[in-house]
Amino acid sequence: MESTDNGRRSIINHGVDTTSTITIKGILSLLMQNVDDNKRPLISLGMGDPSAHSCFTTTHVAPSAVSHALQSSTFNGYAPTSGLPQTRRAIAEYLSRDLPYKLSMDDVFVTSGCTQAIDVALAMLARPGANILLPRPGFPIYELSASFRHIEVRYFDLLPEKGWAVDLDAVEALADQDTIAMVVINPGNPCGNVYSYQHLKEIAEAANRLKILVIADEVYGHLTFGSKPFVPMGVFGSTVPVLTLGSISKRWIVPGWRLGWFVTTDPCGTFKNHKVVERIKKYFDLLGGPATFIQAAVPQILEQTDEVFFKKTLNILKQTSNTCYDKIKEILCLSCPHKPEGSMAVMVKLNLSLLEDISDDIDFCFKLAKEESVIVLPGIAVGLKDWVRFTFAVDPTSLEEALGRVKSFCKRHGKQLQRY
Amino acid sequence: MESTDNGRRSIINHGVDTTSTITIKGILSLLMQNVDDNKRPLISLGMGDPSAHSCFTTTHVAPSAVSHALQSSTFNGYAPTSGLPQTRRAIAEYLSRDLPYKLSMDDVFVTSGCTQAIDVALAMLARPGANILLPRPGFPIYELSASFRHIEVRYFDLLPEKGWAVDLDAVEALADQDTIAMVVINPGNPCGNVYSYQHLKEIAEAANRLKILVIADEVYGHLTFGSKPFVPMGVFGSTVPVLTLGSISKRWIVPGWRLGWFVTTDPCGTFKNHKVVERIKKYFDLLGGPATFIQAAVPQILEQTDEVFFKKTLNILKQTSNTCYDKIKEILCLSCPHKPEGSMAVMVKLNLSLLEDISDDIDFCFKLAKEESVIVLPGIAVGLKDWVRFTFAVDPTSLEEALGRVKSFCKRHGKQLQRY
Repeated sequence: MESTDNGRRSIINHGVDTTSTITIKGILSLLMQNVDDNKRPLISLGMGDPSAHSCFTTTHVAPSAVSHALQSSTFNGYAPTSGLPQTRRAIAEYLSRDLPYKLSMDDVFVTSGCTQAIDVALAMLARPGANILLPRPGFPIYELSASFRHIEVRYFDLLPEKGWAVDLDAVEALADQDTIAMVVINPGNPCGNVYSYQHLKEIAEAANRLKILVIADEVYGHLTFGSKPFVPMGVFGSTVPVLTLGSISKRWIVPGWRLGWFVTTDPCGTFKNHKVVERIKKYFDLLGGPATFIQAAVPQILEQTDEVFFKKTLNILKQTSNTCYDKIKEILCLSCPHKPEGSMAVMVKLNLSLLEDISDDIDFCFKLAKEESVIVLPGIAVGLKDWVRFTFAVDPTSLEEALGRVKSFCKRHGKQLQRY
Repeated sequence: MESTDNGRRSIINHGVDTTSTITIKGILSLLMQNVDDNKRPLISLGMGDPSAHSCFTTTHVAPSAVSHALQSSTFNGYAPTSGLPQTRRAIAEYLSRDLPYKLSMDDVFVTSGCTQAIDVALAMLARPGANILLPRPGFPIYELSASFRHIEVRYFDLLPEKGWAVDLDAVEALADQDTIAMVVINPGNPCGNVYSYQHLKEIAEAANRLKILVIADEVYGHLTFGSKPFVPMGVFGSTVPVLTLGSISKRWIVPGWRLGWFVTTDPCGTFKNHKVVERIKKYFDLLGGPATFIQAAVPQILEQTDEVFFKKTLNILKQTSNTCYDKIKEILCLSCPHKPEGSMAVMVKLNLSLLEDISDDIDFCFKLAKEESVIVLPGIAVGLKDWVRFTFAVDPTSLEEALGRVKSFCKRHGKQLQRY
């Protein structure tokens, strides 16, 4: 915890409000202000939004389905607040393809992207004195949502030397009778790791022993390009009740469409037994939800997207993640403990002892933005001080250019070791 | 309060969960289950969704602007969580047309419909021990949101004999140091009333004396067809800080597009002084928000919609509200104390003493649904037992048919007064 607090103090120096929770968007927009666009065009490896790059475009199926629903004029009215029945059914069928049991439409609630699904999960689980176990590094929306819901946050480490595996000993040590859930993000953001069937099984068994739920953040579901396939946490739904969060944002490259889901992946019916579902339904009455005509397009999008489209995205991500990994290896003061196998980002460690005048990750990112017009995310934003997160969902030429600039930056700020 | 509790107990008899807050959608869906569609086609005067009727269609400008934004492929990515700058600016300009001062884009936050704007307002104002003053009758999403935010709800009456004016004496009696805000819905849902400049001024002055904010729900803004024009509460923003909530849902007849706004209509900068804005921004980081391409269409929609379109809608509403009012006058056991002048619904009082076998509003609505395949909303859902809400945003033929069925229903269940 101390390192985080130091990180926050460090942020103040660059004008960030330290009293409240850090958000990725907040830090990135401060970094942007430091860029002199006249000098060199900005290249951002900061944000996980591939749609900004022309090599990542959605399949023609998606806008055509939305356009069709819009033009039909039959979806201008309200949808049920849990989502259109056909949308819920299509998402249930889509997720069931990878599960040893069938989900029903009643398990699925349609959300405004995965972000809202996260907030729904925490809002539904909140109660006085509750705590939640979050991965470090992780995704700061969990922390922000917990702070609004008055849920205490406890962090377990992800272990870089073990492919960013969950430190299950830490989980066991942290959990108590007030722990409501642990969060597992797989494929991993910000680390680019993918968990094996075996590791997910161990997590499920640990959560079951501890009598806590698993919140499975699978917003990067199926975006794997290494040796391990994507295994949804819901596979272990009989071992432990799982809340599965996801969206079409990343796999279909339409994050701005705000179409996500909150799913009770729970064949034993734990949530249903406890009348939680009624509460969830009421809560959805308060949420805006995605536009009805976008919801109406979802069945077609999920059913008719060609494998070729998915493979194209994965091929580019494999290529750009390799570029990222290889180029970083060439830079003395940076190291990447685990080659990315999934998602769209990777964590890179700074070796500050090799740098002349860089005090920490924040300082690194602000100076890099100013001098090289390259944005990367300070690790402190995702809970790891003196690391940085590189997003590689960027078009290959820009990525190479950006990494070249990072290299010159590191060289320029590197200590002159040869002199000794 | 007792009458409300009785109403809830009564609902149990028809299978509604009484332990939690009532929602309009919940009650309507129970009523639907009572309809035998084979007997006669269902006509619903229950829900405020005009898009279900062919006489209410949006202007061609709207889907064409959305379609254009979608097809451009430039709005598939994330928008800033407070909304696209051009969208916020366009909404600020749109609302400023009716204000004695100019709003800036920083005053505007884009939400998933007005429902989410309501929830944001309450979430932002919530603190331990807080209470909020709500109109009775009102819109139950406020109560539901307050229950999730642990805000105590206190009701002030709207006075039917005074055109549903706010009972300001009651407001003064209810408010204390823990009162955070009062809610004003104008044009009025569920009553169809429109407040005069003078009455809004009195409300603002009372709120100022009591040191509470006004939440101005103007989702039906500009939908007035009587003698009084629509005056936004923000006109009195210098007297009292106002949070203005609205959307394109009703005026543009696209409730399913989920495009609303939460606006600090506050020329004195009260919200800004208190760093509330920072908190609001963080909160928006948790919300999904509307799709980016729909947001991108908003400037064009707000700027290019023809007056002819608006007038067409108002003409139909004037006609259907007149039909509704006139036909109800012909029905002995129903009375409508105030002719609707705005919004899309009106409150109608049941005279139970003239009915043979109807115990209350719930009973009336369930029997009406079963026997006549007509849905109207029990008043208890909006806080007024033994009243019913009729939505008149319905195509004229269906409306006449429905009111005819209501008339036969009332006749059939009426006491045979002539016999004595």
